[in-house]
Amino acid sequence: MVGAKDQAGGHRAVARCDALGVSPYSDMEGGLYRAYLTPAYAAAQTALAGWMEEAGMTVRRDAAANLIGRYAGSDAGAPALLIGSHLDSVRDAGRYDGPLGIMLGVEAVAALHRAGRRMPFGIEVIAFGDEEGSRFPAAMLTSRAVAGTLSPDALDLRDGDGVALQDAGIDIDSYLSAMRAPGTTLAYLEAHIEQGPVLEAQGLAIGTVTGIAAQLRFAATVTGQANHAGTTTMGLRRDAMTGAAQMMLAIERIACDDASDLVATVGRVEALPGAANVIPGEVRFTIDVRSGEEARRNRAAQAIRVALEEIAAARGLRLSVTQVHDLPASPCDPALMDLMDAAIADAGQPPFSLVSGAGHDAMVMAALCPTAMLFIRCRDGISHNPAEHVDPADVDIALRAMTGFIEKLGETFADA
Amino acid sequence: MVGAKDQAGGHRAVARCDALGVSPYSDMEGGLYRAYLTPAYAAAQTALAGWMEEAGMTVRRDAAANLIGRYAGSDAGAPALLIGSHLDSVRDAGRYDGPLGIMLGVEAVAALHRAGRRMPFGIEVIAFGDEEGSRFPAAMLTSRAVAGTLSPDALDLRDGDGVALQDAGIDIDSYLSAMRAPGTTLAYLEAHIEQGPVLEAQGLAIGTVTGIAAQLRFAATVTGQANHAGTTTMGLRRDAMTGAAQMMLAIERIACDDASDLVATVGRVEALPGAANVIPGEVRFTIDVRSGEEARRNRAAQAIRVALEEIAAARGLRLSVTQVHDLPASPCDPALMDLMDAAIADAGQPPFSLVSGAGHDAMVMAALCPTAMLFIRCRDGISHNPAEHVDPADVDIALRAMTGFIEKLGETFADA
Repeated sequence: MVGAKDQAGGHRAVARCDALGVSPYSDMEGGLYRAYLTPAYAAAQTALAGWMEEAGMTVRRDAAANLIGRYAGSDAGAPALLIGSHLDSVRDAGRYDGPLGIMLGVEAVAALHRAGRRMPFGIEVIAFGDEEGSRFPAAMLTSRAVAGTLSPDALDLRDGDGVALQDAGIDIDSYLSAMRAPGTTLAYLEAHIEQGPVLEAQGLAIGTVTGIAAQLRFAATVTGQANHAGTTTMGLRRDAMTGAAQMMLAIERIACDDASDLVATVGRVEALPGAANVIPGEVRFTIDVRSGEEARRNRAAQAIRVALEEIAAARGLRLSVTQVHDLPASPCDPALMDLMDAAIADAGQPPFSLVSGAGHDAMVMAALCPTAMLFIRCRDGISHNPAEHVDPADVDIALRAMTGFIEKLGETFADA
Repeated sequence: MVGAKDQAGGHRAVARCDALGVSPYSDMEGGLYRAYLTPAYAAAQTALAGWMEEAGMTVRRDAAANLIGRYAGSDAGAPALLIGSHLDSVRDAGRYDGPLGIMLGVEAVAALHRAGRRMPFGIEVIAFGDEEGSRFPAAMLTSRAVAGTLSPDALDLRDGDGVALQDAGIDIDSYLSAMRAPGTTLAYLEAHIEQGPVLEAQGLAIGTVTGIAAQLRFAATVTGQANHAGTTTMGLRRDAMTGAAQMMLAIERIACDDASDLVATVGRVEALPGAANVIPGEVRFTIDVRSGEEARRNRAAQAIRVALEEIAAARGLRLSVTQVHDLPASPCDPALMDLMDAAIADAGQPPFSLVSGAGHDAMVMAALCPTAMLFIRCRDGISHNPAEHVDPADVDIALRAMTGFIEKLGETFADA
C-alpha cells in the first residue's frame, strides 16, 4: 500500500472521504448516513480536526457546530478566504457529496503549509453541518447561520424521533452568533462533485460553476372523468392520464427547444383511482423548472402553463397549476469565475463553465461574500447513492485548479 | 305516493332495486355493499323470493346459493328460458348494477302471470350470487357453477377475514350440482345497465348487446436512468416518464384511429422514485385493450407493442411488456340479437347495437346456451358508485322490449 505522503493531494482527499464512509463515521449499518449532530457527525469532526491540524490549521467549532480550521495569512487584519462544503450526508449516501470539497480545502492549505508559505489573507476551511437537511426538516441551517440569514424562529425544529434541535447537543441561544462579521470574508470557494452528467459527456475533469440555477416548482392537477375502461368508447373519454401525458411531452419539448441550461422535469406522478380497468379521472404531477437565468426560467414556465392550458381545453379537462417554490438564481462572482477559468487552464484543462442545477451552501454564502464553485466530474452523474464515484486523478486536477485559484486571488489581493 | 299496482313494471323494478339499497339488504353503513353469502345477501334473497312468488313463480335456492324462480310453460318437457343477473354488489355500490336485470325478469313473468298466459317453455328467473367477486377472490363463481365450467379446485377460497367458502353457510361438496343439465336451457337473457356512456350519447334508452368484448391486459415497465432533476441537462436524460407519456399517447392514437368498438386504456401508472427533484428512472403501467372482435383486439395490441418498442428504442429506454390476462370474446347469439332488435323496434325505439366492454354472467352462460343481452342507459355512464342512476322511463321501455323478446321467442319456438 502506498503511504499517504506518497499520494498526490487529490488522491488523499478521496481516500479521506472513503475513510469517513464507514463506522464510526456513519450512523447506518452497511452504508453511509451521517446526519447533523449525531455520533457519526462528532466522530467525523474529530477526524477532520486532526487532518486540519496536520495541515497547519488551528481548529474551532462554531456556535452552529460547524468545524473551522484557520491557516493565518501574512496580514492579520485581512478578510479571510473561506473554503468549504458540508460534512453531513443523505441516508444511504455516496462518500463524496460534501466531504470532498472540505478535504480539498484541507489539501490546498496543506500544500501551502508544506511549502512554508502564507497568503496575504487567512484561509479558513469550513465543514458545514446540515446542507442536506436529512435529520431536521430544514436544509443549509448552519451555512445560513454563518451567512447571517437565519431567523431565530427557524431553529424550532424536531427530528423524526421528536428530538428538538436545542436538545441535540447544541446551545440554541448562541446559535446565531455563528454569523461571520461583515467584511471579514474575502470570498467563499466550494468544490463539489457535479451530481450530473455534463462534465462526463464533455470528457472534462472539472468545470467552473456560473451559479446555482433559479428554480420554480409547480403542483399540477388534471381532472377528467373516471370511467370504466371497457365500456367507455374512445370518443367519449375525458382521460386525465393521456391529457397529462400530452402535457409532460409539451414540458419536455419546451425545455429541449430552449437548447440552453434550462431543464424541466415531471418527477412525481399519481394517477387516480389507479386501477387497470378504470380510465384515470385525476392525475397529479409536479413540474420543476430551472435555469441559471431567472428570465429564461420564467419564460419557460409561462410557456409551459400556456401549453398545458391549451391541452386541457382541447381535451375537455380541468387543470390547476399551483406554484410551490420560487428559488432565485445565485450567480457566482464573475471576477472569481475568471480566476477559476485561468486556474483551470493552468492545470492543463480547457476552461469550461456550467450551471449548478442543484443547491449548495454556496448559494447561501452568496449573501455574505462573492462566491466561486468548482465542479468535479462524477461517474454517470450519480449522487445520493452508494454508487457515487469520482476518479482520484480528476480530484488531483481539481486540487491544482484550487491552489492556482488561491495564488491568483493572492495576486489580485496584492494588486488591490 | 303511487302504489306498486299503479306503477308501470319498469318503475316497480327500479323501486325494488332502491328498496334493496339499504339495511338490512346492505352490509355497509351509509351505503350499499351486498356480498355473496352475507346477512344482507340472505335478506335480499328473502325479499326477492316474495316478489317471485307474487309473480306466480315457485322459488328454490340452488346448490351455489343462487335464488331461482320458475314460471312453468305449457310444455313441461321443453327447455327453459333463463332470465337473470346478479344480486351481489361491489363495496359502496350503485343500486342497479345486477338487481335491475333480476327485477326486470320478475316483471316480465309477472306480466304473463297477470294475463294468465303461459309460454310453451318455462321461464326461470335466476339471481346469481357473486358476479362482482367483492368478497372471495373469484368472480362469477355461481354462474360458472350453473354453466358447469367450475372446477372443484376453484372453491378453495377465503374472504378478507379468512372465512373459507365452505364455512360461509354453504354445502361445498354439493356446490357443483348447481350445474344445469345439458339441453334443459333454451336461452339466457340478461338485462343490465350499460355502465358506459354510449346509449346516453346516442339519446337512446336501450340497446342490443352484440357480445362481451375480448380483453387483453398487459403490464409494462419502462426503464431509463433516475437522475437529479436540476443537474441533468435535457439532452443527457433517459427519462422513463416522458417515454411512458409518449407511449400512452401512442396507445390512445392506435385505439382512436381504429374508429371501432376498440378501446385501450392505461389505468394504473407508477413513476419511480417519485420525487419532484428526481427524473423518473422507472415507470410501470397497465394496458387494457378490448374489442368485440378478437382479431381487431389482437391487431391493436400488436400495433401497440410495435409502437412502444419504437419509442423505447428512440429514447434509449428499456421496455418490458408482459401479458397478464387474455379473455376471449363472448358473442351473443345472432338469431336472438335479431329477435331483440325487432322487440326494441316494437317498443318504439330504433334498434341499436353495442358491445359490452365489461364482463357479465352472460359471458359465462354462453358455455351452456345461446345468450342475449339488453343494455339500459345509465346517467353519465357511471357505475360502481352510489351516483349510479337509471331513468325509470327507460326501464319501462326495457321491460317492453323484454316481454316482446319473450313473445317472439315463443313464436320461433312454436315454428321450430
